Amino acid sequence: MSAQVPIAVRHRLSERALKTLDVVAKFVEEECIPADAVFEAQIGVGDARWDHHPQVIDDLKKRARALGLWNMFLPKGHYKESPGFTNLEYGLIAEWLGKSRVASEAVNCAAPDTGNMEVLAKYGNDAQKAKWLQPLMEGEIRSAFLMTEPQVASSDARNIEMKMERDGDHYVLNGQKWWSSGAGDPRCQLYIVMGKSDANNKDPYRQQSVVLVPADTKGITIHRMLSVYGYDDAPHGHGHITFYNVRVPATNMVLGEGRGFEIIQGRLGPGRIHHAMRTIGSAERALEWMLMRINDPKKTPFGKLLREHGVILEWVAKSRIEIDAARLIVLNAAIKMDEHGPKAALTEIAQAKVLAPQTALTVIDRAIQSFGGAGVSQDTPLAAMWAGIRTLRLADGPDEVHLQQMGRNENRRGQAVATMINKQREKSEELMKKYSVKKAEIGTNIRKSKI
Amino acid sequence: MSAQVPIAVRHRLSERALKTLDVVAKFVEEECIPADAVFEAQIGVGDARWDHHPQVIDDLKKRARALGLWNMFLPKGHYKESPGFTNLEYGLIAEWLGKSRVASEAVNCAAPDTGNMEVLAKYGNDAQKAKWLQPLMEGEIRSAFLMTEPQVASSDARNIEMKMERDGDHYVLNGQKWWSSGAGDPRCQLYIVMGKSDANNKDPYRQQSVVLVPADTKGITIHRMLSVYGYDDAPHGHGHITFYNVRVPATNMVLGEGRGFEIIQGRLGPGRIHHAMRTIGSAERALEWMLMRINDPKKTPFGKLLREHGVILEWVAKSRIEIDAARLIVLNAAIKMDEHGPKAALTEIAQAKVLAPQTALTVIDRAIQSFGGAGVSQDTPLAAMWAGIRTLRLADGPDEVHLQQMGRNENRRGQAVATMINKQREKSEELMKKYSVKKAEIGTNIRKSKI
Amino acid sequence: MSAQVPIAVRHRLSERALKTLDVVAKFVEEECIPADAVFEAQIGVGDARWDHHPQVIDDLKKRARALGLWNMFLPKGHYKESPGFTNLEYGLIAEWLGKSRVASEAVNCAAPDTGNMEVLAKYGNDAQKAKWLQPLMEGEIRSAFLMTEPQVASSDARNIEMKMERDGDHYVLNGQKWWSSGAGDPRCQLYIVMGKSDANNKDPYRQQSVVLVPADTKGITIHRMLSVYGYDDAPHGHGHITFYNVRVPATNMVLGEGRGFEIIQGRLGPGRIHHAMRTIGSAERALEWMLMRINDPKKTPFGKLLREHGVILEWVAKSRIEIDAARLIVLNAAIKMDEHGPKAALTEIAQAKVLAPQTALTVIDRAIQSFGGAGVSQDTPLAAMWAGIRTLRLADGPDEVHLQQMGRNENRRGQAVATMINKQREKSEELMKKYSVKKAEIGTNIRKSKI
Amino acid sequence: MSAQVPIAVRHRLSERALKTLDVVAKFVEEECIPADAVFEAQIGVGDARWDHHPQVIDDLKKRARALGLWNMFLPKGHYKESPGFTNLEYGLIAEWLGKSRVASEAVNCAAPDTGNMEVLAKYGNDAQKAKWLQPLMEGEIRSAFLMTEPQVASSDARNIEMKMERDGDHYVLNGQKWWSSGAGDPRCQLYIVMGKSDANNKDPYRQQSVVLVPADTKGITIHRMLSVYGYDDAPHGHGHITFYNVRVPATNMVLGEGRGFEIIQGRLGPGRIHHAMRTIGSAERALEWMLMRINDPKKTPFGKLLREHGVILEWVAKSRIEIDAARLIVLNAAIKMDEHGPKAALTEIAQAKVLAPQTALTVIDRAIQSFGGAGVSQDTPLAAMWAGIRTLRLADGPDEVHLQQMGRNENRRGQAVATMINKQREKSEELMKKYSVKKAEIGTNIRKSKI
Repeated sequence: MSAQVPIAVRHRLSERALKTLDVVAKFVEEECIPADAVFEAQIGVGDARWDHHPQVIDDLKKRARALGLWNMFLPKGHYKESPGFTNLEYGLIAEWLGKSRVASEAVNCAAPDTGNMEVLAKYGNDAQKAKWLQPLMEGEIRSAFLMTEPQVASSDARNIEMKMERDGDHYVLNGQKWWSSGAGDPRCQLYIVMGKSDANNKDPYRQQSVVLVPADTKGITIHRMLSVYGYDDAPHGHGHITFYNVRVPATNMVLGEGRGFEIIQGRLGPGRIHHAMRTIGSAERALEWMLMRINDPKKTPFGKLLREHGVILEWVAKSRIEIDAARLIVLNAAIKMDEHGPKAALTEIAQAKVLAPQTALTVIDRAIQSFGGAGVSQDTPLAAMWAGIRTLRLADGPDEVHLQQMGRNENRRGQAVATMINKQREKSEELMKKYSVKKAEIGTNIRKSKI
Repeated sequence: MSAQVPIAVRHRLSERALKTLDVVAKFVEEECIPADAVFEAQIGVGDARWDHHPQVIDDLKKRARALGLWNMFLPKGHYKESPGFTNLEYGLIAEWLGKSRVASEAVNCAAPDTGNMEVLAKYGNDAQKAKWLQPLMEGEIRSAFLMTEPQVASSDARNIEMKMERDGDHYVLNGQKWWSSGAGDPRCQLYIVMGKSDANNKDPYRQQSVVLVPADTKGITIHRMLSVYGYDDAPHGHGHITFYNVRVPATNMVLGEGRGFEIIQGRLGPGRIHHAMRTIGSAERALEWMLMRINDPKKTPFGKLLREHGVILEWVAKSRIEIDAARLIVLNAAIKMDEHGPKAALTEIAQAKVLAPQTALTVIDRAIQSFGGAGVSQDTPLAAMWAGIRTLRLADGPDEVHLQQMGRNENRRGQAVATMINKQREKSEELMKKYSVKKAEIGTNIRKSKI
Repeated sequence: MSAQVPIAVRHRLSERALKTLDVVAKFVEEECIPADAVFEAQIGVGDARWDHHPQVIDDLKKRARALGLWNMFLPKGHYKESPGFTNLEYGLIAEWLGKSRVASEAVNCAAPDTGNMEVLAKYGNDAQKAKWLQPLMEGEIRSAFLMTEPQVASSDARNIEMKMERDGDHYVLNGQKWWSSGAGDPRCQLYIVMGKSDANNKDPYRQQSVVLVPADTKGITIHRMLSVYGYDDAPHGHGHITFYNVRVPATNMVLGEGRGFEIIQGRLGPGRIHHAMRTIGSAERALEWMLMRINDPKKTPFGKLLREHGVILEWVAKSRIEIDAARLIVLNAAIKMDEHGPKAALTEIAQAKVLAPQTALTVIDRAIQSFGGAGVSQDTPLAAMWAGIRTLRLADGPDEVHLQQMGRNENRRGQAVATMINKQREKSEELMKKYSVKKAEIGTNIRKSKI
Repeated sequence: MSAQVPIAVRHRLSERALKTLDVVAKFVEEECIPADAVFEAQIGVGDARWDHHPQVIDDLKKRARALGLWNMFLPKGHYKESPGFTNLEYGLIAEWLGKSRVASEAVNCAAPDTGNMEVLAKYGNDAQKAKWLQPLMEGEIRSAFLMTEPQVASSDARNIEMKMERDGDHYVLNGQKWWSSGAGDPRCQLYIVMGKSDANNKDPYRQQSVVLVPADTKGITIHRMLSVYGYDDAPHGHGHITFYNVRVPATNMVLGEGRGFEIIQGRLGPGRIHHAMRTIGSAERALEWMLMRINDPKKTPFGKLLREHGVILEWVAKSRIEIDAARLIVLNAAIKMDEHGPKAALTEIAQAKVLAPQTALTVIDRAIQSFGGAGVSQDTPLAAMWAGIRTLRLADGPDEVHLQQMGRNENRRGQAVATMINKQREKSEELMKKYSVKKAEIGTNIRKSKI
């Protein structure tokens, strides 16, 4: 189990983390993965999928607390509520959680609650913490983060339009949100909402605020749920929600008016790493399924096991390399956060955010291909995993936005690099003179001119 | 409309085909695509999705017949029932059909009925034709082809195990099938079943037979329907079906015992081209949606239209090139079939079968990425298109099986090529002597040895 | 031989073209390819590589004329000097020429003379034709086209700076050029030079002119020759040339002052197709060498022929598909030119220009990989072929410039497409009403609000 | 400088290593890279390229020793001759060395001497060490490792045929070798030769031996030097060498007869990491050149800097991610070697061996493309870097051999994984019963049968 920790980072793990990792691995393999199908079965069919949550998840949560596995995501040193793991340690834990649909929630480390708890722990006042952070930490309620809007390009958060108008000691919200993940769950009682409170502020990064909105506030309608390649992801789901004159007390403002950007930037760092590490776990699980399939003695096209055919072992090897490389990129970002904080780690986090899903999609698709029809159906976990991870190339900004930003960052050293190369060339010229040699160009004796 | 026909093949189209193409294009764009959402809405929810077929499809079928668009797939010259289009002409028609979910069925050119009608027209006796081909040609019933089995590697059809035992003047069938596409439809009345009638025949290609089985025969149970990613494809669907002592008259045998391989080989050629051309149409539609999105004045991240950002126009250009190349490969295969028959075109057909879906998946995925969240959801046709086409890399054998076969075919000229290259080298040596020159090798004057 | 013509275009070839194709194929396989090594050996070493041309080439030219293979590139109907082949027919001929280093020159169809002859035939006046076109058509002299300059981004030809000043009845040229391909050859007597004759013209597309400059004009210095990877491509070569007060008679102006853009645009169309088709030929030859290698009975790592190992046959199959697709794209562009002229075929030509080299590089690299060390060395033609074709992704503008342009072209229908999709949606709404159905959204019954 | 060390491994570096890294970085940037062109100029032209070595290298070697930079490659703890760096520390040093053509030799860490010194240090007896290891450690002589043979598939070393026959107290060698890298250098005095001493041994891994052969032994002929994409890599070079009755004293046998496989396996581990890390350095340098180019104010096609165009910044970002991922894979392998020895690190080493060159080739090719013509020419270091690194996908076995081996290794857990998944399924069934739920399959109520 803990043997899968890359040697480059192993010694950074505390004894406690190593032990926890083994407990998590065993819990996921032996209790959570087998419960995945039960969870799906208990959701049921039709509208019922949205009106209850499966019993098995509550039982697993009790079991997880008994094992001491709870809220492991809150980084050590950053929050007094933290159980004391570093981002690196939790990253490796999250990889295991990513192998099962129910595991993250079972240990109260599921998105978007994790990011929302971080927001509340970092930016909430005492009253806000008492009312919302406490029950979230206890796993009694769930929450959603309402940012994306259907009518604008939300990948540039300055475009967000949800109106937040002050009216006495309330804010009045009007507008619509979608991809409000988790809003489908009947236990989801809190919406953390990003909106425009000061549309005329000259600084476009000060126009937005974040407000806490109880999910049962009058004026809120869950318009419908969005599907992901045909999956509804019930009861969690991805809500399309309208706000019509929704009033919340002014005390529900987080951190202060106009500080929305500050909050979302603080929120995304570790959360992206969590997604990335869970994604690595999904890729590992897909590889396991592929290994099972290619050795299946009943699947012998043209008289040979699948593994004896053409490209299959190369797929396995490439998957191994690509997963290992992506994992190291993610863990390196986690270590950067541990040592220098999320802000200093923005580039490393962006690398992880882009690389991990693309890697996992490639690996899962190979696994699907090796399964034939079963791969795209409900008989393997592969198709649903693929669909879920495909959204990560879009969530929190599409890959292309992050690549452009990383390109610009890297390009900042363009001038310095040019200066260095030019100095090297000058030095080279000097050396040429010193040694009395010339660059040996070809064709210098060709003469056609009548000069 | 017909302007999209590649110039390389345009002049091969009859006047009638060109006119039909325009009618088809208009019918698809103006009547079928708008009806897609109606079709989906009429299917309904839950178990109801499997117990009726949408009214809109019947109305479209009437309309199509009025327009003279019916059964266009049956190749000219091969079948007396053919309306007289070449494979090339129908290929270009099928591209348009592929842009809409309902269009193929509206013109009675939907899989698997098309392939099944070809089987009946080509191999059926008069009684079989009267009973099954006639109502299929009229669009009164639908049909399924039951070949794949869950417990074996069906990509090698010799592995198929469904027992077909002669018992007096009946055959008795036992076994299970899955990926029986179309079996969900309440109008599906005919199963064309591949099974093993002579397990001990020394020739493994003579052990299989094909039998016609009415869908309501006693002993048949539709166990469940398979999903494709999260889509159920109702009411068509992909059935998992069990056969328990299913008895059919011996006269339902097609062509004769042991001729199953002959039949499936005859069946797959044109059908693969149909799939490939519809796939091209899907890719074109995805590109259209992408073009709409990247010019959407409401989607302006960082103050610019999407098309003004980084890689987007390069995605458009690459999509254009890749679609055009794949289309030419498919049409080339269609022409080969037209001129030399499906058997001679096996390599070209295999090329189309592999290239078209991979191309379309790439294009559709770019379109999804340009849409952000809407791309993976029910708000665009993209995610469902992607899922449907993804299965084509597996259906009728996974890409890898076809690539191995193509590799072996191409490699047949290995010996001839080696002989030619060796002759060229010998000739080169002779010329060297004739001209008294030697190959100018470098480093030939390095001497370290004490010789 | 002619059997390799794709069936989609075969019937377009005249009997004469089919016969010629067979003669060309035989000539290339049996006489040119064996002569390639002789050519290289006769070039010699050091400075000598630039001061003569190999004897074998003259012998091959005589032989080619005897076979009736000469100047086949000049398109039928466009030039009275044409031997009467269509662009399609010559495209298929050029594929064969591309398999040998010497073949194109042997039949007087080598770049850049071909493009230069087209310029003279199309835009030259009678005196210019008599002086330069005549000996070029006879294969007595060679020529270079001097456009690219080292100090600017020449992919945007408006940036070209070479000064062309009128001084009485002369033009005086000052500046430098590089990538002047063919300038190394001692027989190269004509430089066709693009330069800026009217820097202040408000229309940036009217500032440039094209002038004919005898290679031995006073003031011209071949500064050096550029290498391509480690190859010098002698005696042809790629010159870096300086012009210092180079005077040419005003009568050497082609077409008229300020018409440089008109000329280069006319020049590039067919030339790009020639390059692309030769590139297809190179890819075919690389595939042949790979086939030889993977069947070599002396190369049996781990006890099996290379073709029996893992991915090799898949490489063969993919190479076959990719080459065939690229060929069809190129031939489709040739047909477009034949039927509608080069201007109407700009998009098709750009597709060919981008796709063919990328395809060939992939195929050649696979062949190199299958050869191991021999693949990168002088013992196979592969490494040199790869290097030569790699430059085609840069020559006449890098891929990215063409992709951007193609993206813009394709995007022109963005508005029309959006209008169409929006109409389809409206029609869909109408149909929904007519049929009294609603889109079946999920999760619409979730209610949390206290409304 | 040392700031480029990934944070994941930084703390593992000793103070001394960090300081050395800074000294190396400065030495490479300020002294070696400027000397690269001098080195090339001093090699000269024609046969002279092989008969001397450039003076600048000797001066740099003196300088390096003065800076304390010498023989840093010999891993700490493994060899008494080691200057005390771990593989990780040297890995990071080697990255810097990889940026310059001359740097590795300047600090006496150039291949193949490094691997050869490891062989002598690990397997040589005292006399062999005194005679050969001593002058190699002093940088007085150079050496070559002669393994690959032209007539067999050397990627499977059992195929190697060079005859080694005992004749009294001598071995007599007959056969030929190629890709004998370094054999061109006039200072190359030692060939370490792999050959077949016991062709009839039943154990194919005991047939081979390794013998030390002075380069000037009678009977050895450097037949010619091999080129790499047109580069001769003089004076180092890649020799094609014949052995005719070459006699060496029996005391020149390394380790003992039949122990050749043992030796080559011990040799390759760290050497592959060195190559891989130098390759990372090359990729970094290519990225620097690309950054210079895309910000060049003189290169503004269509009025914008290259970095403002389309895909360029995405190329930069992807290059950054890919390089960082490949570096972590290589360093992880180095750490595995440090902690568990090369044998335990075989998989990690193979990952690095495959991933680093492919990554670097992609990055360099992007840089070439951004440079246009200059990129493929002698005016940038890019084309030569690309060619050199392309050979690493073949050297020490082609990628495909390593991928197959890695695939087999990973597949070893196929059975264990299948067992685990089956247990999970069984557990899932139990839970289903416990909770009294069933998997919610779709379409289970479809009934067509008359049962």
